[in-house]
Amino acid sequence: MIFSSKLIEDAVQEFSRLPGIGKKTALRMVLQLLKMDEQEVDEFTGAVSRMRHGIRFCKECHNVADSEVCVVCVNPGRNRNQICVVENIRDVIAIESTQQFSGLYHVLGGILSPLDGVGPEQLNLSTLHQRVKNNEVSELIMALSPTIEGDTTVYYIARQLKDLPVTITTIARGIAFGGELEYADEMTLARSIAKRLPIDNYVTMK
Amino acid sequence: MIFSSKLIEDAVQEFSRLPGIGKKTALRMVLQLLKMDEQEVDEFTGAVSRMRHGIRFCKECHNVADSEVCVVCVNPGRNRNQICVVENIRDVIAIESTQQFSGLYHVLGGILSPLDGVGPEQLNLSTLHQRVKNNEVSELIMALSPTIEGDTTVYYIARQLKDLPVTITTIARGIAFGGELEYADEMTLARSIAKRLPIDNYVTMK
Ligand SMILES: [Zn+2]
Ligand SMILES: [Zn+2]
Repeated sequence: MIFSSKLIEDAVQEFSRLPGIGKKTALRMVLQLLKMDEQEVDEFTGAVSRMRHGIRFCKECHNVADSEVCVVCVNPGRNRNQICVVENIRDVIAIESTQQFSGLYHVLGGILSPLDGVGPEQLNLSTLHQRVKNNEVSELIMALSPTIEGDTTVYYIARQLKDLPVTITTIARGIAFGGELEYADEMTLARSIAKRLPIDNYVTMK
Repeated sequence: MIFSSKLIEDAVQEFSRLPGIGKKTALRMVLQLLKMDEQEVDEFTGAVSRMRHGIRFCKECHNVADSEVCVVCVNPGRNRNQICVVENIRDVIAIESTQQFSGLYHVLGGILSPLDGVGPEQLNLSTLHQRVKNNEVSELIMALSPTIEGDTTVYYIARQLKDLPVTITTIARGIAFGGELEYADEMTLARSIAKRLPIDNYVTMK
């Protein structure tokens, strides 16, 4: 594409760095920003800038947070006996959006994937171990994507915590095997959590 | 969607204002920005901000420009006898990207569409008239989308300039009737311009 403005070219270039955004889509967005008032564009860049510079990660659960501890962990109404273990922040948003889960979360920051060089050290596993050991956690709900990597991660964690008095369950297979958690609709996701299975049944069912 | 961070929610909200960007896509972009270094995000917001505040519109042709006159108009290598009349900036980028047109442009800023309240006063028509009258323009190539509104605009301009010694041509119908110019591939677009027709033939052909 040949632009007749370096300013536009640079902005299109920056948008193209975002996932799934080709040059044409990037241009469309840039031209939309061009139509907006300067003040509206300042609000756009301001929100992005404040987000990136201001965001923190909850020291309890590794979820995104606007201060030291996230709004979920700080909420006295949440059930502290249940921790839902997820791969990433997008999964927390997906599950929170179902409004069906009242426990806490633990964001692993990935799943075990030797081929991609993701081993146990890359994940937030030691803090999970600490939380189970030190607190009144009675159930860990493994809400990982039903893939080989997700399963491997579930087994790894189960083995790591086998001597602690905690029940490990996995969300029900409402999601197709191989499917990605974040693409599930809210209803399916809510039902999967409600119909979760203890990890032994889960193994038997396979 | 329920976010557990106001910072993220605000940024997603801002991205959702862009065309064709739903909440899920906006979130995906925001989370990508979250993964980037703070400095990279500053480059992103900086490019957007500089673009919006710095952009100007060429005083000759109304194309986007980084200074008073755009890079096309300022280029001594361009053929000043031909002016390609387009609806918007996206069309200039599309035609420039074919690298087959060496003349100048005139960006109308829309096409006549009485139903949408776009009349002749809303378009850059008086400057077009001036350019044809005052300069050595021998041909106006009408590169408007082949729609009812595009045709109406072509006829309006042809009537307005009928007493001036200028040939008015339209780009060849390589583009399906009703199709939008900007979606045409570069080859089709280049061929359409090469095989343009004088406006009389164009009327006969219909
Ligand atoms: Zn937290
Ligand atoms: Zn110009």
